Order: sequence, then structure tokens, then C-alpha cells
Amino acid sequence: MTTKISVPRPSEFALIEKLFAPLAAAEPGAYGLKDDAAVLSLEAGHEMVLTVDTIVEGVHFLRDDPADLVAQKALRVNLSDLAAKGVAPRGYLLALSLSPWVNEAWLKAFAGGLRADQEKFGIALLGGDTTATYGALSLTITATGSVPEGAMLRRAGARPGDLAFVTGTIGDAGAGLEILRGGGGMLAPEQREALAQRYRVPQPRTALGARLRGVATATLDVSDGLMADLGHIAELSGVRIVLDATKIPLSSALVAFWGPGDDAVAKAATAGDDYEVAFTAPETAREAVAKIARETLIPIAEVGRVETGMGVVLIGRTGQAIPVARHGFTHF
Amino acid sequence: MTTKISVPRPSEFALIEKLFAPLAAAEPGAYGLKDDAAVLSLEAGHEMVLTVDTIVEGVHFLRDDPADLVAQKALRVNLSDLAAKGVAPRGYLLALSLSPWVNEAWLKAFAGGLRADQEKFGIALLGGDTTATYGALSLTITATGSVPEGAMLRRAGARPGDLAFVTGTIGDAGAGLEILRGGGGMLAPEQREALAQRYRVPQPRTALGARLRGVATATLDVSDGLMADLGHIAELSGVRIVLDATKIPLSSALVAFWGPGDDAVAKAATAGDDYEVAFTAPETAREAVAKIARETLIPIAEVGRVETGMGVVLIGRTGQAIPVARHGFTHF
Repeated sequence: MTTKISVPRPSEFALIEKLFAPLAAAEPGAYGLKDDAAVLSLEAGHEMVLTVDTIVEGVHFLRDDPADLVAQKALRVNLSDLAAKGVAPRGYLLALSLSPWVNEAWLKAFAGGLRADQEKFGIALLGGDTTATYGALSLTITATGSVPEGAMLRRAGARPGDLAFVTGTIGDAGAGLEILRGGGGMLAPEQREALAQRYRVPQPRTALGARLRGVATATLDVSDGLMADLGHIAELSGVRIVLDATKIPLSSALVAFWGPGDDAVAKAATAGDDYEVAFTAPETAREAVAKIARETLIPIAEVGRVETGMGVVLIGRTGQAIPVARHGFTHF
Repeated sequence: MTTKISVPRPSEFALIEKLFAPLAAAEPGAYGLKDDAAVLSLEAGHEMVLTVDTIVEGVHFLRDDPADLVAQKALRVNLSDLAAKGVAPRGYLLALSLSPWVNEAWLKAFAGGLRADQEKFGIALLGGDTTATYGALSLTITATGSVPEGAMLRRAGARPGDLAFVTGTIGDAGAGLEILRGGGGMLAPEQREALAQRYRVPQPRTALGARLRGVATATLDVSDGLMADLGHIAELSGVRIVLDATKIPLSSALVAFWGPGDDAVAKAATAGDDYEVAFTAPETAREAVAKIARETLIPIAEVGRVETGMGVVLIGRTGQAIPVARHGFTHF
């Protein structure tokens, strides 16, 4: 209760009642956001999974970004974490720190973005907190879901001899940010838009997660850059991961922008915000992985191999390691 | 990945490894903060309870406040919610948005505050996210615990004829804030310190919560002001709550500061940040409530009565309602 910030927007209670309570209607344990806490029951033999991520104005998004897309980015970076762990999402808690510039129209569009994603992903708002800040707009989402006991996919578990895989295409979000900053003038408008959209709104691979249980030996979502994130798997599994630059999946728009060379691949493999799933699986699971890709309609590329040793290396066309200055991006 | 903020402090990974991973050591499902999500199993027949609260620099705390107390305030406002719901806390997720002014010494003291409270309340860090912000330091904590199915205490449930109760003393935190802003010159130093401490660090009534199951008909924690919060119970239960000003529990330090009159009681009953538990219970439970107070060593005062009607009213010494301009404080 130090200081009250006065801005021309509805009171906290009015906002919650009007914009956010409807988002909690489908989950009885959220009590219409009218209690101090939410309660969730679990299927027998299941465990609860929790993850949290914050996105901040000026760091993870821009003030001018459409509010519905900001909402969806905040939500989806969490759903991506759950997807990579083999977890079906159930719901989320939302903590909003609102800057003085945030008005009711922005909040209405923001809630609309949440509503659309709730329908898309089959989840509900469970609870939240709304406060004011003098500083940057900040959104923290805690997402939850459940898995059968012991079934959560882990980062540790890759073994020498395993293959490394990644979904979708890599580097598009990084290229999209360059475009939003004015780059990519040589591209067709639809190419620029496709890349920018990859930056604005992640597409979490929710259909994939549960299918990887019993197949993948280690998984994570690619948010800091493919090499940086596979580096986490390598470190926690005590292995070395050798990537083949010719196998890293690049979109045609990205190749049109950055070119097809090893340097473009290295740039793509160290850019952030892909929100694809990277995983390792035994060579004997290669056909099972291909079947999952066919059935989920999610492209999965085999990009390398797990060896004894440590670290991650990207081998170029000449068979030599491509030097990379840094393996990824940190938002810190 | 919009923008990286460079400040002279360790990297995110180094910070997590050094300061925060040790806080997660006691909870196997936190995987040392080295995975994308935490996993928690529940006792059979139990449900998971979740609550989230954010505290922001300049709104809920001041930049000069000791970092360990800021950590404890962020954690305890959540533990207070769980306590009021009859829930034993299990653990928490921490999302930190760090301003450029936050240095390693501050973070070390902050983590020390969390460690001390983890021991005090028997909880562990389950996961988190650390990001930078250009703006105010902001901390969001999502706390979780479990209850037997259907046992979570609710705000709805007060019935005409019930009595209203509150723990501890009311208004001290509000008085403490006045003191931190330079007031209370007539008080003894130990009185000033006692009140200021009530503002700085809530004392969640964790020992009380589970004991109220089967006794209380409606509960919540008092954070916005006693009258405002009992107003939530009144609204959701469809009842009127009539408070007796002579029964509102005030500390001797508060009476020394604000005086013993109805105006002081009204001020206390509409100040924020008490983090006491208010609840209703049938008149037949009066002895059970007294027994809980004796056994938990938590003072519980009977402060009023539930009637048919709506709203909350504070009756003064003359038998007339004391006019109050606003029933509580909002942090919004």
C-alpha cells in the first residue's frame, strides 16, 4: 500500500469482473476469480506440472505490438514449455503489472487474445493478480498441466548413439525481429510477414508433447537458440551433440533473407524465440519419430547425433566445425 | 529477444546456479531449476491449490527496503492467502524482473530472505524465471499447496447468525507505513519499530488455516483492509456483516499512535496490509474457535455478527454506524 498510481482506467475489481472473470468461467476451481486461490483436482496416478515465464515491455515485446499478440506470446511461451515436457496444458494464472500507458482498449484486446488462445488450446484462466507499476508493462504467466506419474519428459537423458531432432524451422523469429526493425527490404511482403509473425506469436507444439513420451530420451523447447538449448541437454545428460548444418531446417523465407550458407545456418541456430521442440531419441526410434511427424502434421528434422563428450558443435558443409561467437540469446 | 539490458551483475545462469538452485534442493521435482518445468505429486484424495501475487517497487515496497524483507513480503503475501484457505504450503515459483539498479549484493540478501522463510514455513522453490526490465523491480510468486478434496475454505459461505472473527491486531501495517514516512514522533522507539515491522513483513497465519476447516463458514486474508475484505465475504455469501468497533483488536502501539476512539478504529479497519485471517463461524462454534486460539497461540477476536442484508457496517460506541470514506486500500 505504499503508493496508489492514478490512471484513467477502470478499477481493478471492475477490470477483473468485466475482462478476466469470463476467462475463468470454464474452470469451477477458479471460483470466477472471486476467491483467494484456485483449486485443481488431478486424475488418479497423475502429477501436476508447473512452469512460469515473464515477458516485459521493451525486452520481450514492444509497446506498439498488438495487445492480443502480446497476450498470446505470454501464454504460448509457457505452453511451449509444457509441450516440450509432454504435458497437456490445463490452465494458467496471470499476474499483470500495468504501466500508466495501458488503457482499457489495450486491456480489452489483451483479454481477447487470451480468450482466442484458451479456445485454441483448451485451457482456462485459474487466477491472477493485477497491480500497477510506474515502469514497464510486465506479464507473468504460471501454466499448469498434468502427466501420468513419472512421465514428464526431461532435459537429462540423452545417450551417446541417440539422434537429435527439432520440429519446424529454426531462426525465423530472429529474422522476424530484424524485419520488424526495418530489415529484409529485398523480401516479398508475404515473406516478411511470415517471418515477423514467427517473432510475434510462437506456435507451441502442444500436439507433439505427449507423443514423445516413451520415444524421446531428452526434450526441451528452443527459446534461447537451438545450440544454446541443445547445450542444456548436453550438459545435463553428460554428452556431446554434433549438429549437421546441412540438416538444420530453414524456411524458404529465411533462406531468401539470410542465404543458404553455413553462416546463415549458424545465425539461425543461435537466434532466439523459435519455440520449437528439440529432442533426442535412440536410432531405433527413427521410424517412430517419422510416424509422429506424419500423424501430428508437425515437421520433424533429424539434425545431428549424440556422442560421448561435452558441448554442442555445428559441422558445416566442409566437415569442419562452424565457429559461433555465442550459442544463443539471453533475455537477461 | 528484443533488447538485452547490460548491467554489472552475473549472468542469469550464474545467478540461478549460485543463488536460487540451492533453494530448490529439497524438492526433487524442481530438478535443481535445470529443466523447463517442475513436477509435483499429490497425496491421494487431495487437490492442488494455487495462488499468485505480485509486488512492485514503489507500489508495494521501496527500493531502500532491506532485500531480505522484500523477499519475505513477496513470499508471505502468498502464504497468507494459502493459510486463509486452510492450505498447508508446499512450494513456490518465483518470477523476477530485475531493474538495472539491482546488484549481486541485493540479490544475495534477497535469496537469504527466501532461504530463512523456506525453513520457517517448510517450503521449497519449485521453479522460476529471471528477466531484466528497464522499469521497476517486480516480483511475482505463485504459491502452491494441497488440501483434502473439497476442503479448501471459501469466501462464500457466511450465514445470517454466524459470528465474525479476526486474528491478531488490525491497522498496525497502515500505522507502520505512516511511521516509515516520518510519522509517530510521539511514540517510543520500540513502538515505532513494532508498527513498522508489521508493514515490512507480514506474519502469515499458517498454523491456523487447517484448524479452521469444519469450523469456519467463510474465510479470507485481510490485505486490502478489514472492512473491504469482509465486504468480499458479505458480497459472495449474500449477507450483511455488522462489526462492533469496541471489539476490533488494536495493538497498544497503535492506540498510542492513533488513539482509542472510533475514528482510530475506523482508520485501522480500512488500512491495508494486515495479512490477518478474517472468518465467519456459527455461534455454536464459539468455543471451538477459542480452543483453536489457545492451541495455536494465535489471538482471535470476535468482532461482529452476520445478518441478512448486504455490505459491511462498523458500529461505534454510541450504537451508530461510523461513516467511512472507503473500506480499504487498493494497490492498483
